[in-house]
Formats: sequence, structure tokens, C-alpha cells
Amino acid sequence: MTAAQYIGNKEFELVEGQPCPPGPGEVRLDVGFVGICGTDMHIYHGVMDARVGPPQIIGHEMSGVIAELGEGIEGYQVGDRVVVRPLDYCGDCPNCNAGLSHICQNLKFMGIDSPGAMQKSWTVKARTLHRLPENVSLKQGALIEPLSVACHDVERARLKSGEKAVVLGGGPIGQLIALVAKSVGAEVMVSEVSEVRRQFAADQGVRTVDPISDDLASEVREWTGGKGADVVFEVSGVPAVVEAMTEIAAARGRICMVAIHATPPPVNLFQFFWKELEMVGARVYEAADFDRAIEIVANGEIDLEPFITSVDTLPDIGQAFAHMDGNPAGMKALLSCAIENPS
Amino acid sequence: MTAAQYIGNKEFELVEGQPCPPGPGEVRLDVGFVGICGTDMHIYHGVMDARVGPPQIIGHEMSGVIAELGEGIEGYQVGDRVVVRPLDYCGDCPNCNAGLSHICQNLKFMGIDSPGAMQKSWTVKARTLHRLPENVSLKQGALIEPLSVACHDVERARLKSGEKAVVLGGGPIGQLIALVAKSVGAEVMVSEVSEVRRQFAADQGVRTVDPISDDLASEVREWTGGKGADVVFEVSGVPAVVEAMTEIAAARGRICMVAIHATPPPVNLFQFFWKELEMVGARVYEAADFDRAIEIVANGEIDLEPFITSVDTLPDIGQAFAHMDGNPAGMKALLSCAIENPS
Repeated sequence: MTAAQYIGNKEFELVEGQPCPPGPGEVRLDVGFVGICGTDMHIYHGVMDARVGPPQIIGHEMSGVIAELGEGIEGYQVGDRVVVRPLDYCGDCPNCNAGLSHICQNLKFMGIDSPGAMQKSWTVKARTLHRLPENVSLKQGALIEPLSVACHDVERARLKSGEKAVVLGGGPIGQLIALVAKSVGAEVMVSEVSEVRRQFAADQGVRTVDPISDDLASEVREWTGGKGADVVFEVSGVPAVVEAMTEIAAARGRICMVAIHATPPPVNLFQFFWKELEMVGARVYEAADFDRAIEIVANGEIDLEPFITSVDTLPDIGQAFAHMDGNPAGMKALLSCAIENPS
Repeated sequence: MTAAQYIGNKEFELVEGQPCPPGPGEVRLDVGFVGICGTDMHIYHGVMDARVGPPQIIGHEMSGVIAELGEGIEGYQVGDRVVVRPLDYCGDCPNCNAGLSHICQNLKFMGIDSPGAMQKSWTVKARTLHRLPENVSLKQGALIEPLSVACHDVERARLKSGEKAVVLGGGPIGQLIALVAKSVGAEVMVSEVSEVRRQFAADQGVRTVDPISDDLASEVREWTGGKGADVVFEVSGVPAVVEAMTEIAAARGRICMVAIHATPPPVNLFQFFWKELEMVGARVYEAADFDRAIEIVANGEIDLEPFITSVDTLPDIGQAFAHMDGNPAGMKALLSCAIENPS
């Protein structure tokens, strides 16, 4: 079977090998589609080589079909259509013991810290699986992982129906957060500098603002009758946006920290005191977030098709990454891996 | 009657005048004791002159006895022993309408934005009053306001019995937070650079650490079995401590931002993401915090007497402030204002 290995320096190499037979508690999947994530782009640029350790098979946003069952698997059969929650936790650290295995102190992220899905055949622990309903295609299935991130963020922010939320940054995760926020009955505004991304949000029925040409704080004040935003999602990772997030939040507003800030930026802690703001960090997802993500796609609340910018086959992986690299406003590039005429 | 006016440049002037008669909904109090707060010290140093507008009567931590009732007062009688919750809110802004009148967008803080308690006779709205039980002395009553701050902080942090909390900064508010934390059944550690203040905490049965000579993060790790602190109270206002707060918090740990950081310090937002930390700002108090503070003093859970460093009479106000200024490790200086042989 074919696997695409990241070998460093923006390059991939196709290798042939035997599928890995599933051990006890494991299943082997025929991989349907794999999405290219922002993290995969960071890996592609070489900034995560120390952690990834090339050559490595990457990829963690995927859908597939069960091809082989290991010993002791109950509740799944060959042919079942599934997605993988790519978290490998130790089960024995203080975080796991506190019911927070998704932020396990020894967490291995599959596709970064261990081999991922950009291959025809992927062998994983059955505990990572979530079943896809018949009416969710494998293409949409490959976007369940990022949608689960958005579900987790909205859950962490405790966003409720009737509240007003501002999403700072309109990349794929920001856009998905906006749609999940709408699905819980909130009103949403996306702040994004790219016109293409603002248009994408507008096409999904989401209000937008350009923080360069417009005054974001004034826009939010006017939109909320002077109250400020009930919830702010910081998805940009940009220090200047961190300044805005405390300004636009209402008294007791909740700021959900989704972005990864590699360097500690200045944060207006006075505003936290003055307005009794709240900030919650959100990282990856829990099992319930995957269940919720699958449910809102299955029941038609969110259509993921518009997010699919391109579909390439696994041998064209280099071209797919290069295309994403030159098209930063694109949403989601998929790789078709193993299944002919997948649906 | 005598009032002490702050006239700028670390100076006070005693003035004589007629007591202000209470209007409808107001009461006139004979002031028992007034505490000198950290904010009063800032005023004394002149850094708040633009807001305070000297000459001004300051002071907001107080106890007293009702001397005169205005029209329409129900539920209070002349002679009732009371404390004042010194918040004058508009009742009509988005925050007030959201039930957050304590952080009203037009809040006037009595004793800063309007005349305060450092006088023999203080006329206030009856809605600011809380009654003192017989077994709470007027001296202890003057400390109900800072204790209410601590109650509010512990409430905002949602600290629960059995949890472990670290208080960063052992001034009066930090020490009171530690005692309130104990009163809800939490275990507490106070991190404080001053040996005198560490000894004060130890005398109240609170565990302490010196963050200069010891490694705070290691101490917390060892104390919590590698988990980290469930709750961290940032009471220091020191940027270096802001770095520590994210390091010592457990996964999903709550950081309560009590301190006023005039300048935005760098905050390790990566740790918020990585450990799904939470931060809540806490400002002043709500009515329920005053009720709780009075209750825990009345039922003997907290003894405020050790916090009283000195008692001077109102004419000696200059000496009292100068003494506090030269004794930064002192806890609480009181001014005795109007009542002879108060109890």
C-alpha cells in the first residue's frame, strides 16, 4: 500500500509497504479523504521538524472505512464508515485522572507525534473512532475533525442562544466557529482582514467586519447597543488582535482563546479587572465534540461542502501542499487516498 | 462636625461644618471606624488627584451607627449598627440592566468619586447599608468592606471545598482571600516576599512560600502531586508574578485576576490554550458578598482582630497615613471618628 512521507524541506516521498495489521483493540482503515490543516502547513514549512521527526506520515483530519478488525473489537464491523479522533492519551496522568484525557500530560497527537492518515491504510485504536451516518459523505467526514474543534470552542465559551459573538480571524476554524455559534442560536460577527474570507463568511450568512478599514470597537459597540460582545473568540494569533479582544468584550464577557500564541503578548489585565472579563483556553476536543459535530452535519444544520477548496489524489500531495501554500485564503484541500468513487 | 479633607501632596486638613441632612432614601451615620485602604494610600501619594479632585473627604472602609433617617426609610432605625457598601450606581446602563450594578458603566465609588467616610458624620443612600449583628464590633465592622472583596474573589473563582488554591501576594486582600478560601474548605498557600507578611499568614494557619528563596513552581507541583493549583489568585500586580500564575495552575485551573495592572504585561496565552486555563476578573463586590462577609465574622469563622495594626483618632489622620506609608508590611490602620468608647 502507498503512504506519503513528509521528508522535510517542503517535500514528500511516496513509499510502498505492507498495511500494518491491527493489534488487540485496533482497527485498520481504508482511508477515504484527508484534509490539510494549518498545523500540516506548519510541518510542511519545517518549523515542527524537531517534534515530527521526518520521515513521518502526517495528516489527522480524515474519514475512512473499516477494512480489518483486531482482537476484542465490539460495536464495529468491516465496512463501517468512520472518522478518527486523533488523540492518544496515557490514561494515567493527573489530567487523565481528572477526566481531561484530551489534554493528557503525555498526549500523543496522531499524525504529528505518531504516523498519520496520509496513506492508503491507517491502523488506529478503536477508542478513537466515531461512526459516520449514511447521509454524511466521506468528503464531509474529513472535515469533522476541524468542526469538532469549533464545537469544543463554542462549548468552552458557554455560548448561548440570543448572545452576540465576535470571531477574530476568518480562517477555516474561525469560519466553522461562526457556523457552530449560529447553530446554537447566537448572532455572530467575523472580523477578518482578507476580502476573500469575508466574502466566504458572508456567503454563509455571517456578518463581517474589516478591522483595517473599519473601527472594530465602534462596530461592535453599535451592533450591541453599547454593551459589547457576550463572547469573543480569539482565533488570529496576532498580538494587535489580543488588544482588541478585551476592548470589544461586554462586562463579564467570555473570551475563548483558540489561537496559539508562541510568544506571550501584552494582555490588558486591567480590563479583566474592570469589566470582570473571563478568558477560557480551548484545545482540541473531547469525544462529545465529535458526536456533536457529526450530528449537526447529519441533521443539515451545517453544510461543509463550501469549505472544500480542492481534492487531489495522494500521489499529488506535493502539488496539493504547494497550492495551499500559494493560496492562504483557501479553506480546505483534501487528499483522496484509497477508496475509488468514494461517497 | 469634623471632617478630614485630603488636600493633595500627602496632606489632610481638618474642617468643621454642619452635618449633611439626609434626603429621601438617605440616612446620616455617626461614623465609627474607617480603615485606610491601599487605594487611600494611592490617593495620599497624589497619583489619583485627577480623579479624586482635592479637596475631598476620602475613606470607604467603615462602620457606623444610624443617627438620622431621611424620608421613606423602612427597615432601619436610629441606633442601628451598619456598614456601607460604597458603590453608587446609575441603575440604567447595560451593566446595571444585566444585574451587574457593582460594575456599572457610570459607577461612582464613594470616598473616591464622591465624599467618603473620614468624617464624624456621613450621609449615604440607605440602599448601601448592611446591618452588623450584635457580636460584630464596630472595629471589625470597618474591615467588612475588604473582607467582602475577598468573598467576591473566592466566589468569582468558584473555589470549592477540597481544592488547592495559591494566593500570589500577601497584603491585606491576599491574606483575607486566604482566610475566606479556608472557610469554604479549600487548602491555601500564600506566596509573599515579605517575611513579616509570611509570618502573619502562618499565624493564621496558612501555608506560605517565599518566591525569592524558593522555587514557587516546584513547591506547587510537590504540594499538588504534579497536578498544579486548582485556583490561583493574582493579587500582586507584579508582571513577573503574571508569568508564574499560568505556570502553577492545573489543567483547567482558574486564575482570579484581583490585582490592578495599570500597564498590560505579557501573558502566556499559550498556557491558556495548552492547559485550557480560565481567568476571571473580579472587581469590588456585590450585596451578597457583604452579607457573606458579615456572616463569617459573626459565626466566628474568621477573626478580623489580628488585621488591625493601629487605631488613631480622626485628628491624627496625617500621622496614621504617614505611619502606614513607612510600614508597608502593616495590615490595617483604623481611624476612630465620632463615637466615644465604640464597641
